[in-house]
Amino acid sequence: MDQRVSLVTLGVEDLDRATTFYAALGWHRHSGSVDGEVAFYQAGGMVVALWSRSLLAADTGVVDNGGWGGVTLAHNVRANDEVDDVIARARAAGARIAREPAPAFWGGYAGVFVDPDGHPWEVAVNPSWGLSDTGDVELR
Amino acid sequence: MDQRVSLVTLGVEDLDRATTFYAALGWHRHSGSVDGEVAFYQAGGMVVALWSRSLLAADTGVVDNGGWGGVTLAHNVRANDEVDDVIARARAAGARIAREPAPAFWGGYAGVFVDPDGHPWEVAVNPSWGLSDTGDVELR
Repeated sequence: MDQRVSLVTLGVEDLDRATTFYAALGWHRHSGSVDGEVAFYQAGGMVVALWSRSLLAADTGVVDNGGWGGVTLAHNVRANDEVDDVIARARAAGARIAREPAPAFWGGYAGVFVDPDGHPWEVAVNPSWGLSDTGDVELR
Repeated sequence: MDQRVSLVTLGVEDLDRATTFYAALGWHRHSGSVDGEVAFYQAGGMVVALWSRSLLAADTGVVDNGGWGGVTLAHNVRANDEVDDVIARARAAGARIAREPAPAFWGGYAGVFVDPDGHPWEVAVNPSWGLSDTGDVELR
């Protein structure tokens, strides 16, 4: 098995609300998305999908008791003011800001927003990790 | 905000158990991992990390009631027998198989395993999505 994530599917309660939120962050849906059913986003070499959380639970074969499930996503940027900007956009779009942008214990600068369905995103500058021209992260 | 996932952090209860499981799937920890604290895996243009779920919840600023939280990861492969092989490896390593490999409603072939910490992975062949030589997924 290659160590790869090809797709992250985020379960949502209201697809229109979710797609409106991500559009406010500047995300563009792929044309293969299906209104009212599923939204796909090309994200570097992988895909992010938004789909009904109840359908996702059933399709995955797991029980959903609600709430957070031990997964936090991160989006790395190049400069502290980009962190501030994304957190500000998320706040304006209705996200809860779980951690205001600040220096992080691991040496970078980061903040956390939580999307309307409870999925948290850390937005970070990590000076220890490389970020390619195209945005790929490269451990070094 | 670029539409990017730079890092997926999976909260785990027992880091040794988790790293043993992923090693059994063929994953290689990055040398920057810290024994007993955190494991990093280069995964294409992004990183997968394994870290204490309780520390992750506190760091993220969310309440953890346990269980699944509406996120399912997927790893796309090129052939049905690769799906079978990964699911067999996961089963041998102690994973629960939430869905046995079978044709999927969306036209591909897929199965789902759940790692020791409850994080589900779909392993899939998706003939509608491109897979580059390096394993990047490209919507088309």
